[in-house]
Parts: sequence; C-alpha cells; structure tokens
Amino acid sequence: MKVPVLQNILSANDQIAARNQALLVQHRVLAVNVMSSPGAGKTTLLMETIKRLKGKVRIGVIEADIASSIDADKISREGVPAIQINTGGQCHIDANMVKSALDRLPLKDLDLIFVENVGNLICPADFKIGTLKNVMLLSVPEGHDKPYKYPLIFTTSEAVIVSKMDYLPLSDFDLKIFKEVVTGLNPGAKILPMSARSGEGLADWIMWLEAQLKQVR
Amino acid sequence: MKVPVLQNILSANDQIAARNQALLVQHRVLAVNVMSSPGAGKTTLLMETIKRLKGKVRIGVIEADIASSIDADKISREGVPAIQINTGGQCHIDANMVKSALDRLPLKDLDLIFVENVGNLICPADFKIGTLKNVMLLSVPEGHDKPYKYPLIFTTSEAVIVSKMDYLPLSDFDLKIFKEVVTGLNPGAKILPMSARSGEGLADWIMWLEAQLKQVR
Repeated sequence: MKVPVLQNILSANDQIAARNQALLVQHRVLAVNVMSSPGAGKTTLLMETIKRLKGKVRIGVIEADIASSIDADKISREGVPAIQINTGGQCHIDANMVKSALDRLPLKDLDLIFVENVGNLICPADFKIGTLKNVMLLSVPEGHDKPYKYPLIFTTSEAVIVSKMDYLPLSDFDLKIFKEVVTGLNPGAKILPMSARSGEGLADWIMWLEAQLKQVR
Repeated sequence: MKVPVLQNILSANDQIAARNQALLVQHRVLAVNVMSSPGAGKTTLLMETIKRLKGKVRIGVIEADIASSIDADKISREGVPAIQINTGGQCHIDANMVKSALDRLPLKDLDLIFVENVGNLICPADFKIGTLKNVMLLSVPEGHDKPYKYPLIFTTSEAVIVSKMDYLPLSDFDLKIFKEVVTGLNPGAKILPMSARSGEGLADWIMWLEAQLKQVR
C-alpha cells in the first residue's frame, strides 16, 4: 500500500495570503508590503509618496502597529483611505489581518495599496500577507552591518531603501560595503539611497514604483 | 466535587528563568538584559562600559543575534569572556538559551553579566530570561513617539537610555515629551540621555550601574 505524500500544502496563513493576492490581482491593485525597524521612516516615505502621486495614482494604506493609531491618523489627513490594524503585541501582521483590512477598502477605486508592517527587521519577513512586492527601509543610523544580522528581510525585499541619508556625514555607515553585501544576498534587489528631508532619491523611488504599477495595470 | 484551580504555574520558560536568577544570586552576579532596535547602540554601550569598568568590575557578556558573531567578536577583543547565541530566526532569546550560555561562563569570577538581546522593541520584552535588571536604548533617530507604539518594553525597563544624542540637532526628537510619556508609563524608570561619541551621559550610566551592583554584592 502506498503512503500518501502530501506536498506544498499551504498553511492557513499562506492560504489566506494567496486569496488576498488573487483578490488584488483581480482588481488590478498593486499591494506593497513596507517593512523596517521602528523609526526608519516608513510613514514618512508613504506621506512623501502620496504627495507626489496625488491625482495620478489612487492610493490606500493599511497601517499596522502593536498599539496606537498615530500613523493611520497622519496618513488619513492626506485624504487617503487608511485602515489601522493593532496587532495587540504580535510582532508582525498576518494574512488574516490584511484580509480584514482589504474588506474595508474600496478596491475598485484604488491602484496601489501600501501595507505598513509592524516595526522590526525579523518577524514581518517570515509571514506572507498577499502583497505583490516587499520593500524595506534601513536608515543610516542603524548601521551598514544589518544585512549580516538580519539576512532574511534583505533577501525577500525587491527594493531596499537606505533612508536618512542626511545623517551620513555624522555616521560611519559605509554605503559601498552595504550595497555589496545586499547585492550578494539578493542580486535582484533595487537599492535606493534616500533622504525625505533633502528629497534625495525620491524621484528614483517613484520611478521604481511606477514601473511596478505598469506590470499590474 | 471541587474543580482544582491552578494558579501562577510557571511556564517552562519562566521556570528556567527563575533557576537562572537563583544561580546568579547565589554567585552574587548582577545580570542585565540590554534591549533595543537594531543599531541603537547596544554593543557600543557595552564596549564603553567595559572600558570604564575594566580592573574594577569583572564583566561577562552574552550576545544574541539571529545570525553572525560580529558583536561577540568585538566584545571578546576587549578581553572580556563573551558567548554568542544565534537564535536562528527567533526574534528574542529565551531562558534556556541564557542557561546554556551561563553554563559556559566562569560565574565565580564575575560581578556583572550583560545579556545583549536580539535587536527589536517587541519580543524581547515578553520573555523572562532570569536577569535582574532590564535596560533599553532608544536612539534619537528612531523618534520620540516610540513609547506609544511599543509600550511594553518601556514599562518593563528599569533604565531607558536615549542614545545618539549627538544626532539631536538634525532630528525633531523632543526629549521633554519623551520623558513625560516614559515617566507616565513607568514612573520608576531612570531616563539617561547619552552619546557614546561625545561621552555625554556615560558617567551617569556608570553611576546607575554601580548602584545596582551594590545591591547584589
């Protein structure tokens, strides 16, 4: 008698993530999972992106935090539909949380959804949520050695933003070494040095984002 | 028939944490759990502390990271016994990992053990490991709103170090608001603004640490 061997059975989370992705593809919405440590500039990046794409791209935002709705409040003041998820202690969002948020967003009227994940470099990289692209930020003050210590998030991100480049003169962050290590881990990654304060790198980011949007729409 | 109600049964982790703590008390060793986001300056703080206490206080270090032994290598070059724990993806260390490390440290010849936890503001605050004191760092570039978003770690830390104060002129970090919020969450917390680069705050930190050492020895 043959023993049944079951392969590639999706976990409950991955099943819901696959359904989220199907729903987004059906509505031709690009969903982007934005990850970083606390304070690396996720919300600032979204605010700057919204300002630059207003009137051209219809954006929605899902904000995730352990506690508080500070970020969703900021975003919704820009006139963009924003949903806050409080994970109540969990260090990442899961597919079911994103499903609940998608149910409350007007998908028919959106081109682009940002999911701002909980701030840390570890757990968010481990959980599929149904977004099409992963983007991560590492800020200059965090140090260029972080890809050695937290390799998974660098490996799973299509774009790696080096934020707070205006801190570079005060820091010993070595951009050359950083690029080499990230490219070694993830040869396809787009590395984008950026400063929301000076505006450096924002045009490149918008160009990257528009290229991803074209693939979906 | 009465239903048995069992209360305060320690989890497996907390049982081991209690045994770690008993072992440390027996050896009159002060163990300090050091927590922060990646790159906030935990290793730098330990290096500066080791330099200042060399010859006076016998220090050992347990380093925890997802991957790599960069930090333990740095520390051991200071001539201090250092053990590296790789958690292999887990976002915090647990009591059993610390037990394994304590088994390899010369407890009889130590006064102070630092446990440098995995870099994030969420999971480490949730797990007892048997240390007597919790210390956390928040660096200025991370922003003063973090206690709203990650309240638990601020509530469970006896000392809250505000690191990278030399970045303050470039930042909108509001130290007054930060102190008010942290004191609201945790009235007993010692708040220590610090810059490893300028040396600001290091004397206060050493003084705080020596007061904790006196309680144990």
